[in-house]
Amino acid sequence: MKHEKREVPLVVVKRLPRYYRYLGALLRQGITRISSGELSEKMGVTASQVRQDFNCFGGFGQQGYGYNIETLHREIGDILGLSHGYKTIIIGAGNLGHALANHSNFAKRGFELVGIFDKSPSLIGTQIHDLPVQDVDDLEAFCAANTVDIAILALPKAAIEMVVPRLLKLKIKGLLNFSYTEIEVPEDVAVENVHLSDSLMTLSYKIAQTEKKGK
Amino acid sequence: MKHEKREVPLVVVKRLPRYYRYLGALLRQGITRISSGELSEKMGVTASQVRQDFNCFGGFGQQGYGYNIETLHREIGDILGLSHGYKTIIIGAGNLGHALANHSNFAKRGFELVGIFDKSPSLIGTQIHDLPVQDVDDLEAFCAANTVDIAILALPKAAIEMVVPRLLKLKIKGLLNFSYTEIEVPEDVAVENVHLSDSLMTLSYKIAQTEKKGK
Repeated sequence: MKHEKREVPLVVVKRLPRYYRYLGALLRQGITRISSGELSEKMGVTASQVRQDFNCFGGFGQQGYGYNIETLHREIGDILGLSHGYKTIIIGAGNLGHALANHSNFAKRGFELVGIFDKSPSLIGTQIHDLPVQDVDDLEAFCAANTVDIAILALPKAAIEMVVPRLLKLKIKGLLNFSYTEIEVPEDVAVENVHLSDSLMTLSYKIAQTEKKGK
Repeated sequence: MKHEKREVPLVVVKRLPRYYRYLGALLRQGITRISSGELSEKMGVTASQVRQDFNCFGGFGQQGYGYNIETLHREIGDILGLSHGYKTIIIGAGNLGHALANHSNFAKRGFELVGIFDKSPSLIGTQIHDLPVQDVDDLEAFCAANTVDIAILALPKAAIEMVVPRLLKLKIKGLLNFSYTEIEVPEDVAVENVHLSDSLMTLSYKIAQTEKKGK
């Protein structure tokens, strides 16, 4: 079954990684089929939400038979572009960059880490995740010799302003930005901004709600 | 104006931290009022989405006059429970825990970091963000002597299973879980799971879409 290439609302796209993770976990448990009802229960969304979400991509399921998990998992992976095997570099080898490099799920999701860069002499030459930390001055030479699709920015704000224009010149396709600052890029470059404090705020909301109920 | 205490869909709640950040940035620029149209444009959502979202909490705005940014920012902060000043500890002083401890936005959002714990002798006693890393064995003693509302889990999966039951006994209100494993908790404990690879998958989707358009 081929999914249709309609424009999909970003709010639905944002749920796809979660579906992908859950379906992967089910597959590893040897489960092969699931109904929208069961899937929705596991994920804490409504069954109609699940059906609506999947309809955005042209279905996947047969009424009354549930979803074939393997097919669904593969198709969602395809929609997410995971089969492209995007080559990834991390800029910033501080604690966050280090933690991200060691994040095994990146490779599991089909992203290959090909380089790590920093400007600090004390970090350049050290090994992280079997890769040597390279001098960020060598970024252009590295990208001339290697394919790089994605740059993960684990840098302070001040450094971002220096590095982003260089990455744009190098025709990097996507930036995963952990710097808590907005970056401006042309339309043909994808950006995803990660704000770690957002998750803490969401948790805070949940606690506040729980406390209200308890009163 | 007091917001109503209805149940708010989680998808709306998830957007609140983003509204909060944007409104904070506008305030710092000295802007005092904004229309739903302008706010929606800045945030890349539709104006009707903005109005719908705020209606979930009972409004905030006056038709034709736009929103008072300061009021809106404060009210959203209240809804998010930021005014509670939740006391936070980090468990796991590795690269991720270290990066999170140094994440200045946590304090800016009203969360006070009161302790960092690890089990590694090489980390215990070192200083991170003006706090000494404490032995995780001392968790119970620390929580008996200090108020702790939130525990941030920056631990490998294996360690999670040991630590979570202890945290539940200590009546911690909320867990921010970076361990990429699902944790089971009673209903009166809030959990927010953070999956860093989800943002990479969303970015991958955006790149794949951009490439399709370019063809």
